[in-house]
Amino acid sequence: MGRITVRRRVRRIDPHGGRERPDTLAAEEPLEIRLNGAPLTVTMRTPGHDVELAHGFLLTESVIDDPGQISGARYCDSPGPDGRNTYNVLDVRLAPGVAPPDNSVERNFYTTSSCGVCGKAALDAVRLRSSHPPAADPMRVRAETVTELPEALRRAQRVFDSTGGLHGAGLFTPTGEALVVREDVGRHNAVDKVLGRALLDGSVPLRGTVLMLSGRASFELVQKAALAGVPLVAAVSAPSSLAAELAEEQGITLVGFLRGSSMNVYTAPERISEGGGTPSEVPRGSPSDQPEGTR
Amino acid sequence: MGRITVRRRVRRIDPHGGRERPDTLAAEEPLEIRLNGAPLTVTMRTPGHDVELAHGFLLTESVIDDPGQISGARYCDSPGPDGRNTYNVLDVRLAPGVAPPDNSVERNFYTTSSCGVCGKAALDAVRLRSSHPPAADPMRVRAETVTELPEALRRAQRVFDSTGGLHGAGLFTPTGEALVVREDVGRHNAVDKVLGRALLDGSVPLRGTVLMLSGRASFELVQKAALAGVPLVAAVSAPSSLAAELAEEQGITLVGFLRGSSMNVYTAPERISEGGGTPSEVPRGSPSDQPEGTR
Repeated sequence: MGRITVRRRVRRIDPHGGRERPDTLAAEEPLEIRLNGAPLTVTMRTPGHDVELAHGFLLTESVIDDPGQISGARYCDSPGPDGRNTYNVLDVRLAPGVAPPDNSVERNFYTTSSCGVCGKAALDAVRLRSSHPPAADPMRVRAETVTELPEALRRAQRVFDSTGGLHGAGLFTPTGEALVVREDVGRHNAVDKVLGRALLDGSVPLRGTVLMLSGRASFELVQKAALAGVPLVAAVSAPSSLAAELAEEQGITLVGFLRGSSMNVYTAPERISEGGGTPSEVPRGSPSDQPEGTR
Repeated sequence: MGRITVRRRVRRIDPHGGRERPDTLAAEEPLEIRLNGAPLTVTMRTPGHDVELAHGFLLTESVIDDPGQISGARYCDSPGPDGRNTYNVLDVRLAPGVAPPDNSVERNFYTTSSCGVCGKAALDAVRLRSSHPPAADPMRVRAETVTELPEALRRAQRVFDSTGGLHGAGLFTPTGEALVVREDVGRHNAVDKVLGRALLDGSVPLRGTVLMLSGRASFELVQKAALAGVPLVAAVSAPSSLAAELAEEQGITLVGFLRGSSMNVYTAPERISEGGGTPSEVPRGSPSDQPEGTR
């Protein structure tokens, strides 16, 4: 409870080669909010200040507008695998006379950064089953090719420069060729558009592909990659702790902080061929790799 | 349909003063996805590639794993205020024999970057009613004070430097004093934690305050500010088109691209006192303003 960071081993790759080192990730865990004992929503959040989070959520969903409308909040017993309370289920009691929200089909509570599940089995069901587990995918990608993907994504994001407001997601081949690039105000939408295009093209499961993200890598985005069978997810910014955990479970290679000529590899680093040396040097990659990642 | 950018007038303020100019914002509109005619979810998205978005959403929610499981998708008639089809409602038909998702209380579809509503009345109900409309709030803030908020927020985000993975939100006084700062892997959670703290402290409606965001300003975040009565929202990055529209409707001052000593003011610029000249110059602000925005 209350852990806002998690330590993990990471493989740092830069032009001088790769090395293991510890890294600190932002903690991400599901919080189930119950209202008078009934499940209301689940959000993927950084643990801590959960009572505030619940109050703010209920305020900004127009359920309450005064703190007196809540009579109390307490953590339910929700033991984790080790038998200890995870403190990931919070029950909020409305004061007598305060109407609970209309939770009919006309009105579902959204939860941004959510796991998509709600209810008694919520916390166990966070991980959807993938029909296309990427664990066995033998794809290899040169580190130099990976470092060129952020620029390739930006080039393909025609709108980006004019608004600065769009998240980008792109699907690439192991040699850095863009297959499909989409952008959206919601990064999850950008990923859904990319994966939906691939599905329509009959190319799911997406063996031998790289999903490049313009921002951070959350649990949900890694889950989307897993469900489409993508073996490598690369993000310009940081992954969350749960994103790295899920990537490890699913055998997905997760790259973060992909900036300039360096990156952090959080899981399954064997898919990244570290050429080392100068960019012009012949890489150790497969002979079928293109020598140039740029197009 | 398909508009991915929207033009707006914006007030650009930098050390040389303020001036009006056109700006381009990323379009954000609600998309209601229906499944066999029944409302499934609403997501706030950038228009375009909606069929792909629906396919990707259903794939990554484990409803389908093959494109043959969808027999078709078409836009429903959903006229906007001008009587024209908004192309914001998409009905997806599952192929015969494909089971729709279990949409019982055990399983709600989340929609990240969502408006929080789902169902027939979804598109009308996007805007929740605020008990605390900020339109009449007479607060004034010096431009120099606003430009110092990003750094003040970062200082208060103790964890930020170590993970790079957390969104920050902070509530500030008009003279730049931090009232409460929270951070989270989900930016909506960070805002909910801030507003929930304020609610618990009995300070909602939050008259005379500034909500500072470390990232972009989406519709939802402005909606949260409106429901808590916050008159000024400032973001380091871009707002979406619908964020600016809602801010205008609610009389909220919306500041974006708050970087260095400059900013874009999208709505209600009268709350920003433009000092102009050098930072050491005495500003035109109210006499009660502190001469220094730093603490």
